[in-house]
Amino acid sequence: MKEIYLDNSATTRVREEVIDLMVRIMREDYGNAASLHLKGVKAERYVRHAKEQLSAILKVDPKTVFFTSGGTESNNWALRGASYANRRRGMHIVTTSIEHPSVKNVLEDLKSEGFEITYLPVDTDGLVRLSDLAQAVRDDTILVSVMFVNNEIGALEPIEEIGTWLHEHHPDVLFHTDAIQAFGKIRILPKKLHVDLLSCSGHKLHGPKGVGFLYVSERTKIRPILFGGGQQKGFRSGTENVPGEAGLGLAAELAYRDLDEKTGRLYAIKERLVSGLQELEGAHVNGKTGRESAPHIVSCTFAGVRSEVLLHSLEERDIYVSSGSACSSSHPSLINTLAGIGLSEKEQEGTIRFSLNEETSEEDIDKTLHVLKELLPVLRRFVRR
Amino acid sequence: MKEIYLDNSATTRVREEVIDLMVRIMREDYGNAASLHLKGVKAERYVRHAKEQLSAILKVDPKTVFFTSGGTESNNWALRGASYANRRRGMHIVTTSIEHPSVKNVLEDLKSEGFEITYLPVDTDGLVRLSDLAQAVRDDTILVSVMFVNNEIGALEPIEEIGTWLHEHHPDVLFHTDAIQAFGKIRILPKKLHVDLLSCSGHKLHGPKGVGFLYVSERTKIRPILFGGGQQKGFRSGTENVPGEAGLGLAAELAYRDLDEKTGRLYAIKERLVSGLQELEGAHVNGKTGRESAPHIVSCTFAGVRSEVLLHSLEERDIYVSSGSACSSSHPSLINTLAGIGLSEKEQEGTIRFSLNEETSEEDIDKTLHVLKELLPVLRRFVRR
Repeated sequence: MKEIYLDNSATTRVREEVIDLMVRIMREDYGNAASLHLKGVKAERYVRHAKEQLSAILKVDPKTVFFTSGGTESNNWALRGASYANRRRGMHIVTTSIEHPSVKNVLEDLKSEGFEITYLPVDTDGLVRLSDLAQAVRDDTILVSVMFVNNEIGALEPIEEIGTWLHEHHPDVLFHTDAIQAFGKIRILPKKLHVDLLSCSGHKLHGPKGVGFLYVSERTKIRPILFGGGQQKGFRSGTENVPGEAGLGLAAELAYRDLDEKTGRLYAIKERLVSGLQELEGAHVNGKTGRESAPHIVSCTFAGVRSEVLLHSLEERDIYVSSGSACSSSHPSLINTLAGIGLSEKEQEGTIRFSLNEETSEEDIDKTLHVLKELLPVLRRFVRR
Repeated sequence: MKEIYLDNSATTRVREEVIDLMVRIMREDYGNAASLHLKGVKAERYVRHAKEQLSAILKVDPKTVFFTSGGTESNNWALRGASYANRRRGMHIVTTSIEHPSVKNVLEDLKSEGFEITYLPVDTDGLVRLSDLAQAVRDDTILVSVMFVNNEIGALEPIEEIGTWLHEHHPDVLFHTDAIQAFGKIRILPKKLHVDLLSCSGHKLHGPKGVGFLYVSERTKIRPILFGGGQQKGFRSGTENVPGEAGLGLAAELAYRDLDEKTGRLYAIKERLVSGLQELEGAHVNGKTGRESAPHIVSCTFAGVRSEVLLHSLEERDIYVSSGSACSSSHPSLINTLAGIGLSEKEQEGTIRFSLNEETSEEDIDKTLHVLKELLPVLRRFVRR
């Protein structure tokens, strides 16, 4: 039976073109990008090309793109590196209450070092309000960090609105966005959005695991968090992961090819899933839908069902979904977007995330809805007993 | 013409078996190891198996092996994580003057935070003396860091001697070794060596780039340096790089299969290269050779020749070598093993590193020696003009 993988926000299958490129590099062009001989020069060319691919998508200078080991490192570096480099100006940071643990836990650690963190609430759709942010920013605020797309419910945060407001009212404050769930799905132009720091990960867009990047605007003062051989102009030491970086560059280029067309298709598929879910008894789709939300994430709460049981029942039919955010499923206490939008504990425990990719078909959705329709009454009977 | 790659200490070609495994995971078993469904469980099994492969080699508990993004992160984490976690006991760290930049530059950063670092000298063979170390360790010393194999000249540091001495005289002091050039070539048993922290990298042993590990003994207190979703028991957050970790596990298993036989062959090949070099006019092999040195690294100083010129001349004949350490070739000021063993600036500039792998053949060596014999007089004439 064909598997239906609807957990693309946890991770994605790597594209064949990306695999081919990585294999070629691992087998033939395996040099160290820092080596002076031809094998090093060739390796360095892959790295440079990947930076060009990424910077072309973002419309920024390739020099402002730095490779990391993934989204977690990008977020850690952006927050810690910018906080340390700018602490003389102030020690106050503003963020939201629904950030990913790789943002929140870094900020909590910075708090233990004397930084002050303001967590903004979100509305029932998971959206932060500019008015709250405007009230929170102070003279000693050095950094604002707001995620682009929420990983649990797909909320599209008002990044441009925040960036523009900061640029006008607090031009010295740096603006970081965790774009790990957004990059590859949404056109992102950091200059236009007035974003200074932007975190991305390879494995969310059909690229390799273990690689990501951080965009750092020219004006941003940042300290490295990893020290060593001085690679990437000393900002991120460590032998370049050439196959991973090249794979990420290619995956991003392919993700952004015909983006509008693909996004249109994704929104249509998402709409099909959302309306189907809304027809199911005791099912409630969380947050906004349609163009006001990310095109690939649907969060649905099923009354009277435990998400883990539903997840495993779907798995038996080769349908893969997530309960909460897979990134942190081993520490469920950290998951709080659902609480942030006002779901009760019981509702949180009955919530499933469906996350699509560009190959998700209408048949996949119909099959999933069909199976849900069959399973839900059975599971509910089971719970009541 | 067949290429002769003698820069294996910079990086290595990935083994075919490792590529096959990584491709299978990227294509089919691409799940997130934190996901609760079958695709997550399968991914997690690869991670666990890789930890078992590595811990079997080291004869340690799989729970003491933590994956990182490579050697640089392993060294950064070991040093910063252990220093922070143990600073209440003291702020003094002892190391050598010939460590890799990913050790030295972290320690220099810790120095700026108030830690005190003692750099031990080395003898003309690049070896640290236990007597110097014994004098340097104090009551407030919390950490000793000595590399296992020097990356520039292949010196084999007296790790067991140091570990045993520390264990007897300063049992509270943690002992870290950067084993990045040693792992895969030398049998390493941390328990026997009384090593608490051991850094390794995948791409030095025909495994993937962008992945490494840190062994952390049960007794070692260490803080994470990357915060996030709580993967790896919260010690190293970030989505597991399943293909990379599985690739590293397999590469290590294969490296250690028939190790004695392979090492015997490597030492024979190295001996052939060393004696050939010693016969060349104006050539001087640095450091110890034979069983008193690492089996795969040969450093040779050529009088009256600039290493970069020689490197590029060899490259034209499809022979790839390194001048100094490729890891930091963009920051030559950091390279100082050669200075540490007493080479003049001129001698340092005339030094080439040859680094072998288990497939390096006698023909490769003979060809290299033949080309050197031809090139050296020509290059020297060129320099004199």
